Amino acid sequence: MDKNANIKRLKEIDHELVLYQNITALLGWDQETNMPERGVEGRSEQLSLVQGVLHDKITSSEIGDLLEGLGASEQQPSGDSSFSDPERGLIREYFREYNREKKLPKKLVQEIAVVTSKAQPAWAAARKSQDYSIFQPHLEKIVELTRETTKCLGYKDHPYDPLIDQYEPGMTTAEVARVFNGVKKDIVALLTKISEKDQVDDSFLYKQYDSKLQDDFGRKILTDMGFDFQRGILSESAHPFTTGVGKDDIRITTRYTEPSMSSSLFSTIHEGGHALYEMGAASPELKGTSLGTGISLAVHESQSRFWENIVARSDDFWINYYAALQELFPAQLSGVTRDTFVRGINKVEPSMIRVNADEVTYSLHIILRFELETALVNGELEVKELPEAWNEKMHDMLGIVPGTSAEGVLQDVHWSAGLIGYFPTYALGNLFSAQFFETLKQEIPEYREYISSGNLIHLQKWLNEKIYRKGGIYTAAEVLQQVTGKPLDPSHFSRYLEEKYTRIYGL
Amino acid sequence: MDKNANIKRLKEIDHELVLYQNITALLGWDQETNMPERGVEGRSEQLSLVQGVLHDKITSSEIGDLLEGLGASEQQPSGDSSFSDPERGLIREYFREYNREKKLPKKLVQEIAVVTSKAQPAWAAARKSQDYSIFQPHLEKIVELTRETTKCLGYKDHPYDPLIDQYEPGMTTAEVARVFNGVKKDIVALLTKISEKDQVDDSFLYKQYDSKLQDDFGRKILTDMGFDFQRGILSESAHPFTTGVGKDDIRITTRYTEPSMSSSLFSTIHEGGHALYEMGAASPELKGTSLGTGISLAVHESQSRFWENIVARSDDFWINYYAALQELFPAQLSGVTRDTFVRGINKVEPSMIRVNADEVTYSLHIILRFELETALVNGELEVKELPEAWNEKMHDMLGIVPGTSAEGVLQDVHWSAGLIGYFPTYALGNLFSAQFFETLKQEIPEYREYISSGNLIHLQKWLNEKIYRKGGIYTAAEVLQQVTGKPLDPSHFSRYLEEKYTRIYGL
Repeated sequence: MDKNANIKRLKEIDHELVLYQNITALLGWDQETNMPERGVEGRSEQLSLVQGVLHDKITSSEIGDLLEGLGASEQQPSGDSSFSDPERGLIREYFREYNREKKLPKKLVQEIAVVTSKAQPAWAAARKSQDYSIFQPHLEKIVELTRETTKCLGYKDHPYDPLIDQYEPGMTTAEVARVFNGVKKDIVALLTKISEKDQVDDSFLYKQYDSKLQDDFGRKILTDMGFDFQRGILSESAHPFTTGVGKDDIRITTRYTEPSMSSSLFSTIHEGGHALYEMGAASPELKGTSLGTGISLAVHESQSRFWENIVARSDDFWINYYAALQELFPAQLSGVTRDTFVRGINKVEPSMIRVNADEVTYSLHIILRFELETALVNGELEVKELPEAWNEKMHDMLGIVPGTSAEGVLQDVHWSAGLIGYFPTYALGNLFSAQFFETLKQEIPEYREYISSGNLIHLQKWLNEKIYRKGGIYTAAEVLQQVTGKPLDPSHFSRYLEEKYTRIYGL
Repeated sequence: MDKNANIKRLKEIDHELVLYQNITALLGWDQETNMPERGVEGRSEQLSLVQGVLHDKITSSEIGDLLEGLGASEQQPSGDSSFSDPERGLIREYFREYNREKKLPKKLVQEIAVVTSKAQPAWAAARKSQDYSIFQPHLEKIVELTRETTKCLGYKDHPYDPLIDQYEPGMTTAEVARVFNGVKKDIVALLTKISEKDQVDDSFLYKQYDSKLQDDFGRKILTDMGFDFQRGILSESAHPFTTGVGKDDIRITTRYTEPSMSSSLFSTIHEGGHALYEMGAASPELKGTSLGTGISLAVHESQSRFWENIVARSDDFWINYYAALQELFPAQLSGVTRDTFVRGINKVEPSMIRVNADEVTYSLHIILRFELETALVNGELEVKELPEAWNEKMHDMLGIVPGTSAEGVLQDVHWSAGLIGYFPTYALGNLFSAQFFETLKQEIPEYREYISSGNLIHLQKWLNEKIYRKGGIYTAAEVLQQVTGKPLDPSHFSRYLEEKYTRIYGL
């Protein structure tokens, strides 16, 4: 076959694989939102069937032959330079996936599936009874299999490299360590200053807020952000998430069961940021292709964090929305000034649980996990020593120590699912978002007026043009360079926090 | 391979095909309940992918070889007699499906798909503008392709035989005509008697009823019927339906948008009847197999109609539930006696629209369609003559004539989707339900006490034992014979109507 026939065929296969991925997404979404309790066994059979089909297709010899015919190699992962940028992006993604899947022996993949399927209930039981020893043997097995995985995938510098590369292609352990070290020092210094000031009041967030009214308010903001309800829906689940069920079907969830009203509202906006990215990434050019959902977890997280924190937790944002919120909830908010409200939703306080952490301390929770994961993977730390190491780092970074393993080492589901290398993308998202924001401020000098008048759509349009519509064509590093003219620089995030919290806490 | 290996392999394939069918069901359910408007294009691509996989697998040479190895033939469609009943049922179903799919040329199947995909929007447009001529050329093509289908499938007596056999295996045109003729005469006579009496009042059903309270009440009844909310859910859609998304995941929908409260409530109970059948059919022995969803459309409809009409529209039923309904809706029902309520929900009145028809006239709407379909298929009637033929039959059977084609020949979606041969199963369901009910009365003499005290679970247990748990092992005719000791006898339904409406209308 000639190159044109090869790329045409790759696109056909990609179209089919995207449909299977959409189906997988629907099976997952439905499980969290609608499925009756006992449906779980049948659902896992359905998921496993579709995932098996996906695996077989992606590792087929046809894909291998096509990639070879397209000139893809380690030296030239995007194939022949005569192809268009989207075509080169597609070749790069398939080259990555094909090689990764090919390098992992089927026996290892199956063993990981078996071990993690047993580890997850063990983790839940351990967390419930606050007994790490129930989970420890499972995590030992997972770390052992993860070490084996790194050997199969291969690495030059650090065994953690192929793990992080799995979730954030192109990122390395050394690069993560460099940016995390930069930001860690700054955050710890900022935290010290904040701790010397009077704490803000956020008690009004913990009153009773009607969930139907919260839902109405969230939908209004989503609409203003540019969320297209003809191409997506908002529903409820125990843990908020975003998923693409089709090229014009991007779904987000939120929850109204949290004690604080703000955690529901900012979950909605956070997932709305993910959805805007996917809706924009499914541009006419990329629709229905595997490039139509965005480039990486960190860039994805940068968009959710941008809307959640940089936009919706700003003073300016509430200039427009606070009166409407007060009107919806007069009993809860009538005595609360806008200024008090904005301080309340930005309260900074070292706490045990990552998912409830504020904007300042959040990244420290991630850096802690990154440091522990790299040490586990390269053998500097053993699983049995993990709780103690966790508590020491919590003390060093946040000045607090968990009373139980449930609010310490056992709090997250990720490790029980075998997801080692995933956490850093959360904090990288914060760094990306602040760096993008710097450029946005320069290119849209009137951005504050837009935010304070509810004209959020102008921000969405800029993001769409600069980031969303590029989908997965360019790597995360390339997108960052294209938009900001620079490689990743953590000082933007440090400066953003410094400026904002100097104002909030009167530092 | 030996016979044991063959049957084992057939079961493995069946398990996989059922998972694909479950996925198809979820894609369909989600489209009607949650999918955003613009998701439709992607969804149809997803559905077409999975349906293509199903078709390829069911017509594979492996299935053909297995069936041969299992001794299945036209003379012996259930294969070798040494297999168990469930195994023979499975062989019978695959032999049917395989032969049907094999007999239809791929070109014909594809042409039907193309023609019906264009016919459906044309039908919608024709119905909207009340202009049959928009739909006529599409229906002409569909009837032509249907005639071709009957030739490919083959028949001895009537070209409609292979069409009805598709939806109600084993049923023939002659048998349907026999039972329909019997019941038609009786219903027309009963209708004449009713028309001479004073009409009952049902105006109170058309007041405003809060949908949340209606939903609560429907769920209470479903629970009493034995609907297992751990194995199923109730949600809303424009047109109520039941679908099996997994072996322990049976979903029903209802709607609260109808002008009459009773149409929502009885829709819920109707679909609940379908769901009970599927939940019972997914017995431990049949779970996850293609026998685990029931045997035929008529038996399925007999269960929905049994719960909707025979149970829930009875006097006895409301002895238990009416006080609770009045308490929920005091403004609407406080002045309405139970007797008035029961008469109101059983109001008989010839009307244009099948889906809104009462229990007495409903079957006439079906008989009319059956007579027209058989005439169209064997060439006695041409598509251009259809509106006139429709109106004549409406006049003869129901004494009314549609003012527009929208309330006449264009009212149902079925023909535009190529579903010719499907309608009879609706009325056959009524006949089956009355015949089953006769046996139930004999075997549970205290059935009225159970109904009037809300102990519906005793009825569900009997149905489960006699019908549900047999799933698709035995044919519909065999189940009827096993349960009632007789072949299909339409006089049970006529007698049931006669007795009930003599009381309601004081005939």
